[in-house]
Amino acid sequence: MAELRAEEVEREEEDYRLDADVVDAILEAVEAQDAAELSRLMEPLHAADIADLLEQVSGAERREIIRLWGREIDGEILTEIDDAIREEVIQALPRDVLTEAVRELDSDDVVDLIEDLEEPQQEAILEALEEADRAAVEKSLTYPEYSAGRLMQREVVTAPEHWTVGEAIDYIRKADWLPDQFYHIILVDPGHHPVAYVTLGRLLSAPRTTPMRDIAEESFRTISVYQEEADVAYAFNQYHLISAPVVDEDERLVGVITIDDAMSVLDEEHEEDILRLAGVGEESAISDTVVETVRQRLPWLFVNLLTAILASGVIALFEGTIERLVALAVLMPIVASMGGNAGTQTLTVAVRALATKNLTESNVWRVVRREALVGLVNGAAFAVIMGCVAWVWFDTAVLGLVIGVAMVVNLFVAAVAGIVVPLGLEKLGADPALASGTFVTTVTDVVGFFAFLGLAGAVLL
Amino acid sequence: MAELRAEEVEREEEDYRLDADVVDAILEAVEAQDAAELSRLMEPLHAADIADLLEQVSGAERREIIRLWGREIDGEILTEIDDAIREEVIQALPRDVLTEAVRELDSDDVVDLIEDLEEPQQEAILEALEEADRAAVEKSLTYPEYSAGRLMQREVVTAPEHWTVGEAIDYIRKADWLPDQFYHIILVDPGHHPVAYVTLGRLLSAPRTTPMRDIAEESFRTISVYQEEADVAYAFNQYHLISAPVVDEDERLVGVITIDDAMSVLDEEHEEDILRLAGVGEESAISDTVVETVRQRLPWLFVNLLTAILASGVIALFEGTIERLVALAVLMPIVASMGGNAGTQTLTVAVRALATKNLTESNVWRVVRREALVGLVNGAAFAVIMGCVAWVWFDTAVLGLVIGVAMVVNLFVAAVAGIVVPLGLEKLGADPALASGTFVTTVTDVVGFFAFLGLAGAVLL
Repeated sequence: MAELRAEEVEREEEDYRLDADVVDAILEAVEAQDAAELSRLMEPLHAADIADLLEQVSGAERREIIRLWGREIDGEILTEIDDAIREEVIQALPRDVLTEAVRELDSDDVVDLIEDLEEPQQEAILEALEEADRAAVEKSLTYPEYSAGRLMQREVVTAPEHWTVGEAIDYIRKADWLPDQFYHIILVDPGHHPVAYVTLGRLLSAPRTTPMRDIAEESFRTISVYQEEADVAYAFNQYHLISAPVVDEDERLVGVITIDDAMSVLDEEHEEDILRLAGVGEESAISDTVVETVRQRLPWLFVNLLTAILASGVIALFEGTIERLVALAVLMPIVASMGGNAGTQTLTVAVRALATKNLTESNVWRVVRREALVGLVNGAAFAVIMGCVAWVWFDTAVLGLVIGVAMVVNLFVAAVAGIVVPLGLEKLGADPALASGTFVTTVTDVVGFFAFLGLAGAVLL
Repeated sequence: MAELRAEEVEREEEDYRLDADVVDAILEAVEAQDAAELSRLMEPLHAADIADLLEQVSGAERREIIRLWGREIDGEILTEIDDAIREEVIQALPRDVLTEAVRELDSDDVVDLIEDLEEPQQEAILEALEEADRAAVEKSLTYPEYSAGRLMQREVVTAPEHWTVGEAIDYIRKADWLPDQFYHIILVDPGHHPVAYVTLGRLLSAPRTTPMRDIAEESFRTISVYQEEADVAYAFNQYHLISAPVVDEDERLVGVITIDDAMSVLDEEHEEDILRLAGVGEESAISDTVVETVRQRLPWLFVNLLTAILASGVIALFEGTIERLVALAVLMPIVASMGGNAGTQTLTVAVRALATKNLTESNVWRVVRREALVGLVNGAAFAVIMGCVAWVWFDTAVLGLVIGVAMVVNLFVAAVAGIVVPLGLEKLGADPALASGTFVTTVTDVVGFFAFLGLAGAVLL
């Protein structure tokens, strides 16, 4: 037993999950109001894990932890906490703890921390900052939400483009305001336009007399301060950037974005896509209450109800037909279901291809043609299979023929809708992940029922 | 018109999409067999964009580009090319070009390049490598697929833990084998166990006499060489790592993983999840042919057909009931559809929470309870709405009552299945993203039809 136990703990450590034993011990300490024990247990945890813990426990437990241990919450923990409970945590913190916490953060982290807060809370945090930091944060907040301007940090290490390695090293050695983490030195011209960058690794391995320009990286990209953060994340991933200078309208350097922030954005974008495809509000969090969860999901289910009623309206057109051959009622959901699934396959591939910029003007027609052909081939395959099943099941060859034809029609329509709908939404400036699913399944339900029941009415009766 | 055109081009540049005009010009050059023009057009493109281009053009165009321009394909382009066409491209390259291309790569890139190739192609590339590199790559290939051992690069910059900043700087200045990109120096003990790491930024800003230990990063994590790459990506994102030392069973340093590789893995994992949730083979690529696409999608549609037939079997049990009240056939897809959608919402949230390690032993019961309650609340809401609709539509109050009760039952079952099914699959060691959808919609179809038709049979007839 003890053996097994040890293995279990190891496994949990290995996959980075919060150790269940540690969580239990923490909750016991909370129950016992043992602040010292709580402190001892929390101390070795990483800020990100503490944030996860606060998200995973119940609301009552969270309030107790903050009451007992809140004085030790620092800026790093605050930035890790999910939006869903951040406001609650900040509100519960003593004012001096909050002040201390935000003062230690880089400007980009403060922006990230406060951009979703209510006005009075924002004000409280801005007041806690020193004058210069406050100005920097307020400047960042003037950029649009989800823009590079919000994501960047303003602390940048630069050097004039004509410097040598030795000059740059001496300058860094003397600087006392360097950011926590930096990986490049950005070379700027006299107008403060970035022209190249040098990795610290190359700087360290080059002779002191080497001109900085000679060891600059070959590929160099600047990011506009108005660039959407999703595109910034894409660029980092596509071009293997580690950090990238951010420039304003006049191409002047205003900040820098580092890959760890880009990676967070990439992760959030994916989360949004996956939740939107399922018709779940993208703000969903594990700490949400029942009321919050209902509020996120009910609207999408309501939209689905309307489309389902529409599809039922199609069935109602054929009530007489179904009355005379009830086998149609048995088989019709199969046609609709296969269409819905085939459509979802195509639209998911299309949504992903749009997100990764792999679906472009150059290949859109080839991809549409491919999907249409795939729809026909799959339709034909399942027409044969389902045609035989229906024939045998209801001992009517014509019924097999009818469902076969309906299957080909619906899987072809599903494939075309699956690619045309997301493309159309993208062209209209809407997020294809958000509404494609509802559109496509509405099409496949309506077409499926219409093709099957209509054909049956014409042929069988 | 010219104005608009310029704006269009700018927009495309801004969102990093391949410029359609450039692609058109490239394809024109290919058509005209103008190798010089092709070369001129390709030259400014980043390796990742060239790879995207090769994926997006047709197979015939791709072969022509490689024939005309293949001599300029280098290692970087090869590593960027999607698995789906990498084999084809490698096969088409002249042997000397391939040799040149792989020799310039770091060991982790070579591993990434060859791990999915067929034996003879692997052999060809291994032979092209110099002896030491070949041994490094072969060693990496002994680690399991998708492990940290495959992902890491073996070129690591280390320093004895007792060194000073000055000693480390002098050592780096003299070294002639440094990796392309490195951001940390790893401190090792005499047994070559990593004990801490120092960022190059701190190294540069500290006095020469400072002991390296004094400027080491506070948080330090090593990664086991057998760790799954998905967990590695999670750790980088969770703990904001930039690079992390990889250790063997004896905790000895064997390599390092950098954040850009972790970011690629995170992106691939998301792609897999999203495609699996939609029942699309995760190998799907924009360059796939019709045959490849059918081969990926048909199996999932076939599974769906089986479950749809199962649901139809349930309907068939109530043929007599439907015959006497055909309104049931009209309304029954609504109950099934709402259940399927509600179940998909819950399971998507559950799959994401499992992937981000936010669904743990500590909160699983609270989350299950929440989902069940949400199911009941949504069920009640739609029971009222749909009950009224059915009542008015078919002028039968009892029919409204029946569909209302069936709605509550099915949305409750959908919620519970939506969370229990992915949890169960995870416990069994299966990927919850892969099969949850099919299970859950089967449950909601069967329960939906059974509850609605069964209740109607009992109450109405």
